[in-house]
Amino acid sequence: MRTLVTLTTDFGTRDTYVAQLKGVLYALGPRDLELVDLTHEIGAQQVMEAALFVRAAWPRFPPKTLHLVVVDPGVGSARRGLACAHGEQHWVGPDNGVMSLLMDATTRAVSLAPERFVSGPVSATFHGRDVFAPALARLAQGAALETLGDPTFEPVQLCWPAPHISRYELQGTVLHVDRFGNVISNITRAVIEAWQPTSVWPRLRVRVGNGPWLPLVRCYADVAEGSGAALIGSSDWLEVAVNCGDAGQQFGAAPGATLEVCVLQTGA
Amino acid sequence: MRTLVTLTTDFGTRDTYVAQLKGVLYALGPRDLELVDLTHEIGAQQVMEAALFVRAAWPRFPPKTLHLVVVDPGVGSARRGLACAHGEQHWVGPDNGVMSLLMDATTRAVSLAPERFVSGPVSATFHGRDVFAPALARLAQGAALETLGDPTFEPVQLCWPAPHISRYELQGTVLHVDRFGNVISNITRAVIEAWQPTSVWPRLRVRVGNGPWLPLVRCYADVAEGSGAALIGSSDWLEVAVNCGDAGQQFGAAPGATLEVCVLQTGA
Amino acid sequence: MRTLVTLTTDFGTRDTYVAQLKGVLYALGPRDLELVDLTHEIGAQQVMEAALFVRAAWPRFPPKTLHLVVVDPGVGSARRGLACAHGEQHWVGPDNGVMSLLMDATTRAVSLAPERFVSGPVSATFHGRDVFAPALARLAQGAALETLGDPTFEPVQLCWPAPHISRYELQGTVLHVDRFGNVISNITRAVIEAWQPTSVWPRLRVRVGNGPWLPLVRCYADVAEGSGAALIGSSDWLEVAVNCGDAGQQFGAAPGATLEVCVLQTGA
Repeated sequence: MRTLVTLTTDFGTRDTYVAQLKGVLYALGPRDLELVDLTHEIGAQQVMEAALFVRAAWPRFPPKTLHLVVVDPGVGSARRGLACAHGEQHWVGPDNGVMSLLMDATTRAVSLAPERFVSGPVSATFHGRDVFAPALARLAQGAALETLGDPTFEPVQLCWPAPHISRYELQGTVLHVDRFGNVISNITRAVIEAWQPTSVWPRLRVRVGNGPWLPLVRCYADVAEGSGAALIGSSDWLEVAVNCGDAGQQFGAAPGATLEVCVLQTGA
Repeated sequence: MRTLVTLTTDFGTRDTYVAQLKGVLYALGPRDLELVDLTHEIGAQQVMEAALFVRAAWPRFPPKTLHLVVVDPGVGSARRGLACAHGEQHWVGPDNGVMSLLMDATTRAVSLAPERFVSGPVSATFHGRDVFAPALARLAQGAALETLGDPTFEPVQLCWPAPHISRYELQGTVLHVDRFGNVISNITRAVIEAWQPTSVWPRLRVRVGNGPWLPLVRCYADVAEGSGAALIGSSDWLEVAVNCGDAGQQFGAAPGATLEVCVLQTGA
Repeated sequence: MRTLVTLTTDFGTRDTYVAQLKGVLYALGPRDLELVDLTHEIGAQQVMEAALFVRAAWPRFPPKTLHLVVVDPGVGSARRGLACAHGEQHWVGPDNGVMSLLMDATTRAVSLAPERFVSGPVSATFHGRDVFAPALARLAQGAALETLGDPTFEPVQLCWPAPHISRYELQGTVLHVDRFGNVISNITRAVIEAWQPTSVWPRLRVRVGNGPWLPLVRCYADVAEGSGAALIGSSDWLEVAVNCGDAGQQFGAAPGATLEVCVLQTGA
């Protein structure tokens, strides 16, 4: 297995910023480095979206994968840099919450001390290239996390919306609308399972905002083309979709919207 | 030569789906795997466009290249998965016509039997990650095509438009308008050669829709900037272009439009 | 270190053109080839933008990196192909000015003689694939620059705008507006340093077009969210930005606009 490094940024692909990052990684990293673009289309400065994407993708990567996450509106200010280890993988980026969803009792984190690993000049506007990429290259070369800075026990945590659970209703929040218009919420399969036994699932109905109540199905093709449905997506998040259509557009849903699940009462 | 794998999807690059595919391929594939993005910008669920792109790109890749094609509106339904071998290359994807243009007497195809090669859980909405990538990783590891499923002799074939040929006219269909606005048709160089000797080509005129009749030239710069012309493109398909301009916009041409070729009659 | 090759084109990522280039490079290049997308989003046929990007990115890449630059509106016409060596890196592309900013007394350049290194057919519309990629693959295999053609001493040079310097004012031109809306000019840090001692910098004010006069700060976060400022960007070019906002939009700035720097006179 080569040394895999993923890149998550809000740089887009029009400019040279991603290429500059990669140049530094190739120059400082190990010979067997393999770079994978996770995405460069995070909304400009959308830290929460980045945190979500980081969370969705890493379980698919092999152990020892490293991840560079550069969504950094506070670049050059007093915000610290962060490197952390979770499972057998590593992350490096600004300490602004982009790694929020990785943090648990097993996560180790250090606050970056650039003077310990940066030799060249550091610009005030591109720490991705001048601080985070060199830090990640060190880890990729096999350095221990602790060589990059001192342990920190209070990394910035985003205030992440949690679903509200009551006896007859589950209320969540839309986190993301993907390229196909699938509307993805913060309600996981595990939450639904803890709420209702699967025998009740055929009677669950889901709506986003003021949209129609939709059945919970297994796959897009379970409903007619153009029809809406809810399903548990490939990352185990409850989503609302339209078969061969765009649910975000059809139901006017955007991040932050409310998504509700209820149990259809069988007639008396 | 390393093990080259190309990826063709309609996932776009905003979401984490492509990265998840790649994570699986790196985890399950050979150590010398090299991934090449063919495109992720296939129109959402546009199977025919995918088939065209698959056809245009593969001749440029070295023998033994493998191709993953995931444009899959029917994911989770009864549609089968398909793997095929053509020349010295392999393809894996849904059996919905995306490989239509590879099918000839020499092509071998199997209908995927996921239970023979998938160990983890299979989601209902992301077979690209859970079925096709593992299948392709197996082939990349050197497994024989037949280990992935049983031979199939009736893969889904798209109904592909064929040009109409008469004595004085050739009528084709627009397949694709590229980023530059070049309008690409289903009329190949071979079809024109079979129709008229090259000595007649200077008298050929081409139009798309109700646009003006344009001369057949060799390269864009053969006409003035802003002027339209027809030429045989780099994949040997007849196209209509505007030098330093956008023919699709200028002539209002989109996939499905008619493209005609006629012979200019010399004055009596 | 593997053999790194960057790609800069105006092909976009919707079509198969980039993949075709890559296929040829993998087929003809060395086994340890590593391809890096610099960008494929150069504005269609914008040679000057390509020249700027080439200039911004190469210093970040390790010695021996090779660069393929295909922004080629004159493809198929009489324009020549060019390969050049600068520092320890190489470039290949059309001789239309895309390499303008690399040219100095130390740069060696040859005019491509395709008959010396191309074996297959050459299309009239895709020299990137049929001429430049094969040329670059040769260099990547270790061939000397001079095997690709005869030395040329007059490569096409773009007429690059230079800043005007007077005692109290510096006047430059906007070269590029990046994804974040940062407005990047042709005034470098070195030009400002030669003009005014850094002790005067706190009194410098910068404006783009008829926009407001903005202070020169160190990083985006030095001003309030939504406020404009000037700063020296990560490639040492003076730029105008809005903290967490889009300066291009807010100040109506586009490439070609004027950017002025003046010294604020302290009150009498």
